[in-house]
Amino acid sequence: MKIKPLGERILVKTEEKVEKTKGGIYIPDTAKEKPQEGKIVAVGKLKESELKVGDTVIFESFAGNEIEVEGKKYLIMNEKDVLAKVE
Amino acid sequence: MKIKPLGERILVKTEEKVEKTKGGIYIPDTAKEKPQEGKIVAVGKLKESELKVGDTVIFESFAGNEIEVEGKKYLIMNEKDVLAKVE
Amino acid sequence: MKIKPLGERILVKTEEKVEKTKGGIYIPDTAKEKPQEGKIVAVGKLKESELKVGDTVIFESFAGNEIEVEGKKYLIMNEKDVLAKVE
Amino acid sequence: MKIKPLGERILVKTEEKVEKTKGGIYIPDTAKEKPQEGKIVAVGKLKESELKVGDTVIFESFAGNEIEVEGKKYLIMNEKDVLAKVE
Amino acid sequence: MKIKPLGERILVKTEEKVEKTKGGIYIPDTAKEKPQEGKIVAVGKLKESELKVGDTVIFESFAGNEIEVEGKKYLIMNEKDVLAKVE
Amino acid sequence: MKIKPLGERILVKTEEKVEKTKGGIYIPDTAKEKPQEGKIVAVGKLKESELKVGDTVIFESFAGNEIEVEGKKYLIMNEKDVLAKVE
Amino acid sequence: MKIKPLGERILVKTEEKVEKTKGGIYIPDTAKEKPQEGKIVAVGKLKESELKVGDTVIFESFAGNEIEVEGKKYLIMNEKDVLAKVE
Repeated sequence: MKIKPLGERILVKTEEKVEKTKGGIYIPDTAKEKPQEGKIVAVGKLKESELKVGDTVIFESFAGNEIEVEGKKYLIMNEKDVLAKVE
Repeated sequence: MKIKPLGERILVKTEEKVEKTKGGIYIPDTAKEKPQEGKIVAVGKLKESELKVGDTVIFESFAGNEIEVEGKKYLIMNEKDVLAKVE
Repeated sequence: MKIKPLGERILVKTEEKVEKTKGGIYIPDTAKEKPQEGKIVAVGKLKESELKVGDTVIFESFAGNEIEVEGKKYLIMNEKDVLAKVE
Repeated sequence: MKIKPLGERILVKTEEKVEKTKGGIYIPDTAKEKPQEGKIVAVGKLKESELKVGDTVIFESFAGNEIEVEGKKYLIMNEKDVLAKVE
Repeated sequence: MKIKPLGERILVKTEEKVEKTKGGIYIPDTAKEKPQEGKIVAVGKLKESELKVGDTVIFESFAGNEIEVEGKKYLIMNEKDVLAKVE
Repeated sequence: MKIKPLGERILVKTEEKVEKTKGGIYIPDTAKEKPQEGKIVAVGKLKESELKVGDTVIFESFAGNEIEVEGKKYLIMNEKDVLAKVE
Repeated sequence: MKIKPLGERILVKTEEKVEKTKGGIYIPDTAKEKPQEGKIVAVGKLKESELKVGDTVIFESFAGNEIEVEGKKYLIMNEKDVLAKVE
């Protein structure tokens, strides 16, 4: 089964919330919004960015809609919710 | 009787809310918005997407207005409320 | 006496709220917005739709302003509040 | 003394609130917004409608700013607040 | 000392709030917004109206920012806050 | 050290809040917003006004972000927050 | 590891909150928003400003999303959140 995001949306495979993510980013526990890390697995028709499948991205933790396909968790979010790319 | 959605709206035959939908998507029970699955049965004049009758779509569970025609439940929603297509 | 809706408004003769409307649409009693059915009796200068006098339409129940002319109840609403046409 | 409405505003001579207005429109006592009836006595530079002095109009009861000139009550409102014209 | 309003603003010399203003306008004590009367003493670069110094205008009582120059009270407000001109 | 405001912002040297400012403007103690007086010491790339360094301006007291450089207080605000120029 | 801000965002290395920052700016303890100082370490595709890596900037303290990479704290913020540049 394949999920095709509509419009300016991307499908992101999220990491389990850990103290220190695989990309080495530690999310401090403050009052500020805590961004989260994930990997893009599918893209819709993006307008503003050149994000592509395989990119590791940082996004606001409240971004997107959560779904679970064949036992794995994903987020469908707008490309505008992506803060930065990890290179 | 036929229902013709106006403007950028689509008419969707919704699935009963089950733990695991027919399309194999499990909706986890978290604080995030839980998307729902359905099949398009009628379309208005869409502007942004190429959605068509027969497509299986995932949408935000709070999307659309619920109606019941000849004993079956439907949702009339805007094409922008569709998150992804199941291929 | 004749009522001429201004701008993108239409004048709709509403049905009494019944369990099952004349058009066969049953409005389920859920937390979602419940659309209502009515017949268009006058139109202003519409911009987005081809709605015309005589059309049976479904609209959000909170839509429009209620008036009563010569003993009959009507709603004046914007064409954008119409969800679908019953054909 | 003459009042000249500015921009897209009109000056309306309102009717006393009665059960049944002179134009024959009865305002039902429901939870919906209750429109009111009045006669246009002055217009500004209107953009969207062809309303003119002498027209009897129906408008939302919360529309406009109330003033009293030489013992008579008026409302200054935007042309967009007019729902329909009584012909 | 001279005050030059910036942009689409005007400087208005307000009347003391009296039951009946000099222009003969009585402000009724209702729940509706009560407009106030004043005289324009300076204008910025207006875009939408042809208001000029010396005009007597009616405006919403909550409009503008109050200042006092050499013992006299003024309001600096946007031209859009002016409802009507008294001719 | 020099502070360069970004975009349509200006840097303003504010006056101590006194009953009567140096420019002779007294700020009455009412429920209305009380404008404040200051002198422009730096400008960004302004779009709508011809404000320049040295101008004495009146602005809404809640406008801008307060900073203190070398013992003196300043406000960084948008040019749109300036109500009038004192000439 | 390198963080590439997306769109009109910048990555800022923030200073520890001290009474007097390295740039000599003291942030007074008032009810007004208190700007903060930092140094730009990466930029996305900026549209409105000519900010570049190495610039010392002042921004609103509530601006941006906080992340920590290899033990150092950063903020990802929109270029519009930058109030001024320290020259």
